[in-house]
Amino acid sequence: MTERRIRLNGLRQSTVGHTAIGLWRHPDSQAHRYRDLDYWLDTARILERGRFDALFVADALGPLDVYQGRVDAALRDGIQTPTDDPLLAISAMAAVTRHLGFAVTVSTTYEQPYAFARKMTTLDHLTGGRIGWNIVTSALDSAARNLGLVTQLPHDERYAMAEEFMEAVYRLWESSWADDAVVRDAASGIFVDPARVRPVGHEGTWYRVPDIALAEPGVQRTPVLYQAGTSPAGRAFAGRHAEGVFLSAYLPSMARRLVSGVREQAVAAGRDPASVRFFAIATVIVADTDDEARAKLADYQRYASVEGALARWSALMHIDLSALDLDRPLEYVDTDGIRGMVELFTTLDPSRTWTPRAIAEFVGVGGGGPVIVGSPATVADELERWMDEADIDGFNIADPVPPVTFRDFVDLVVPELQRRGRVWREYAGDTLRESFHGPGVTRVRDDHPAATHRWTTA
Amino acid sequence: MTERRIRLNGLRQSTVGHTAIGLWRHPDSQAHRYRDLDYWLDTARILERGRFDALFVADALGPLDVYQGRVDAALRDGIQTPTDDPLLAISAMAAVTRHLGFAVTVSTTYEQPYAFARKMTTLDHLTGGRIGWNIVTSALDSAARNLGLVTQLPHDERYAMAEEFMEAVYRLWESSWADDAVVRDAASGIFVDPARVRPVGHEGTWYRVPDIALAEPGVQRTPVLYQAGTSPAGRAFAGRHAEGVFLSAYLPSMARRLVSGVREQAVAAGRDPASVRFFAIATVIVADTDDEARAKLADYQRYASVEGALARWSALMHIDLSALDLDRPLEYVDTDGIRGMVELFTTLDPSRTWTPRAIAEFVGVGGGGPVIVGSPATVADELERWMDEADIDGFNIADPVPPVTFRDFVDLVVPELQRRGRVWREYAGDTLRESFHGPGVTRVRDDHPAATHRWTTA
Repeated sequence: MTERRIRLNGLRQSTVGHTAIGLWRHPDSQAHRYRDLDYWLDTARILERGRFDALFVADALGPLDVYQGRVDAALRDGIQTPTDDPLLAISAMAAVTRHLGFAVTVSTTYEQPYAFARKMTTLDHLTGGRIGWNIVTSALDSAARNLGLVTQLPHDERYAMAEEFMEAVYRLWESSWADDAVVRDAASGIFVDPARVRPVGHEGTWYRVPDIALAEPGVQRTPVLYQAGTSPAGRAFAGRHAEGVFLSAYLPSMARRLVSGVREQAVAAGRDPASVRFFAIATVIVADTDDEARAKLADYQRYASVEGALARWSALMHIDLSALDLDRPLEYVDTDGIRGMVELFTTLDPSRTWTPRAIAEFVGVGGGGPVIVGSPATVADELERWMDEADIDGFNIADPVPPVTFRDFVDLVVPELQRRGRVWREYAGDTLRESFHGPGVTRVRDDHPAATHRWTTA
Repeated sequence: MTERRIRLNGLRQSTVGHTAIGLWRHPDSQAHRYRDLDYWLDTARILERGRFDALFVADALGPLDVYQGRVDAALRDGIQTPTDDPLLAISAMAAVTRHLGFAVTVSTTYEQPYAFARKMTTLDHLTGGRIGWNIVTSALDSAARNLGLVTQLPHDERYAMAEEFMEAVYRLWESSWADDAVVRDAASGIFVDPARVRPVGHEGTWYRVPDIALAEPGVQRTPVLYQAGTSPAGRAFAGRHAEGVFLSAYLPSMARRLVSGVREQAVAAGRDPASVRFFAIATVIVADTDDEARAKLADYQRYASVEGALARWSALMHIDLSALDLDRPLEYVDTDGIRGMVELFTTLDPSRTWTPRAIAEFVGVGGGGPVIVGSPATVADELERWMDEADIDGFNIADPVPPVTFRDFVDLVVPELQRRGRVWREYAGDTLRESFHGPGVTRVRDDHPAATHRWTTA
């Protein structure tokens, strides 16, 4: 491809309402089938047919209960509540695909490095090297309350814990088993050569991992690492560790600032900033013509839930928006969070009066990023503009009416992007990391911090 | 069936050496493929073809390092070291089967009830109600060391914690969401009725779970519960909670004592003792004739590892057997553990001199239970004898040369047992609990402690 390849990820959570709230009511929506294995198998097949790099599965570890201080609004629209575990459908999806990667969200705050490293290695084994990990530290108070913490840890302490967590899992993945440890030599009776396996010996502030890794390494050893944090601590963390960054931005210029912020941090960490890949959330509503696509969006918008959107935004911002007048412009509210939100939406459209209702309607079909509407050519133009103006590597495509939105994208947009030479027709290799860095590159790059833990022959 | 049905489970761990040590060297063994998805898909298909109730997946959370105080012997034969996570291949196996159940081992000691309940519910969703949980508390010091505990908790404290853990997960599975909570009514815009979901409100000594369960209930709500403990605390725990008990015994009379011990505890807990099902570990080596089967066993025995068996037994008994003279009768060793072992093996064969080598050879092909050898008729006779004399409900069939031993059993023994009316030709229902208790019984029985937490309409 002459132009830079547009890298595609599918965005999902094992829940009813995620980026789009209320659209479960649309007659075409299969969102309620999130519990069914077939729903995930269909999804994986669709995305692989569209040559997506990966399916990204988000998660939330507690109910959404900031709005009204209750879980009621979240339950009514199934907004990340209920939600199922993101790891457990992966092997089934791997069984019906050959190349699609899987980026699963797991919080460092509620895992032990020893058991978690084995989980990821097991998934690396079962998927044949197609597993990625979206590293989060969990901001929800409701998760902390129910998972053994009396209160939420402070944000920066969570990131300090996460740093030590990374150190421990890197050692488990990269340093404990030499590449030639598994010899499987029936003649000498040696399956694993004990001289080629060594203890991890991690003794830290939060974690203690004295022994050898319990799982032999997978093809990728360290899973492909993703991150989505945009706070200063989050950007620094992403600059050090992330190979892929999921962005939430409504304008290419906003995305570009986030991209350059993380790339600067990557440079500071001694990494090639070009090796970090950025994916912007986008909701794409496509049809054969622009008019039909606009009609489709209008149809979807009829199902968007205003209260549901406020409940989701309350949880995201840690501010209970239920106290606000739905139809009063927000300028009168004097908190940092609300001021930031007003600023954001005023930048998007200065001509509009931004009330809570207006914001809720705006994010109803596609929270977290742009809603791109039109014919395949219109959509492709807009995606190309984002690629250039935001300096990103691809997108995290949302699925507001699952799996219809994914299928529309794959049937209509992907062929157009392939014609333009922007989406590949075949995968580059068999592993997720090869989708990132090219055929043969199955391990972390030499400039990645995990590489410092490699067991290299002296 | 006029005779009592023989219930079959397949016994596996995601590792190289489990009940049989050293047999990975046999040319037919696929044990090294434990990391491959296809290996598990093949296994699931074979067991469903043989109308097995379930695949039981064991686990170990730390390396086996008691023998010589080192992990070397365990590594050389891959004895539960390395081992992969048992939960992550389940959905893939569910995708290629329709009825086979899955009993996965998870320790209460290293999980939080809130997150663990969601994992099991997710598997209940993805398998369509075919998930079971083998409850363990983890005896390995190596697990404790690497999973955040400074030292192993005392045995009885682990069981006290496990009791509270069960209380918390029962509430999450049975009490938080009413059966009619998920209404999915597009007209009223209600996916979940908040009035039909309630907080768990568990405040205990070890665990705190104030909020609603994060996952909506699965078909079974509480997964089918298994247990394998034989200590007094373990028997009492099994009597209270287990619907299925995995037994390790070398003689029917030994098994019978364990069975009646747990049934007494079930009575004490107010449960119907007949509702608890007992499965004895058995290794079956079958061929068309007795002579061929004996030749097959002799062939397998050539690959059994004496040192490997000692390493495994050292871990099981928490005694380092490497200090002992391999060929000296064990009477001179004056510890409870060794005395118990000598007593056990002398009961099995009083005519033999039980040295460490003799014991290691004896358990080499099939540790944990009888090795039953012969033609299909001979094997069926012996399984029927065990059923009657041990008062058990079925077996936990080991797979020393995977998946050959499973395939042999399904191809040769199952048809013979079906002819005798002892193994069913079709499954009774779609869920694992229906395999236990009959068509339509998808939830825990009314006399089970989980049932006390049900949200019944007043």
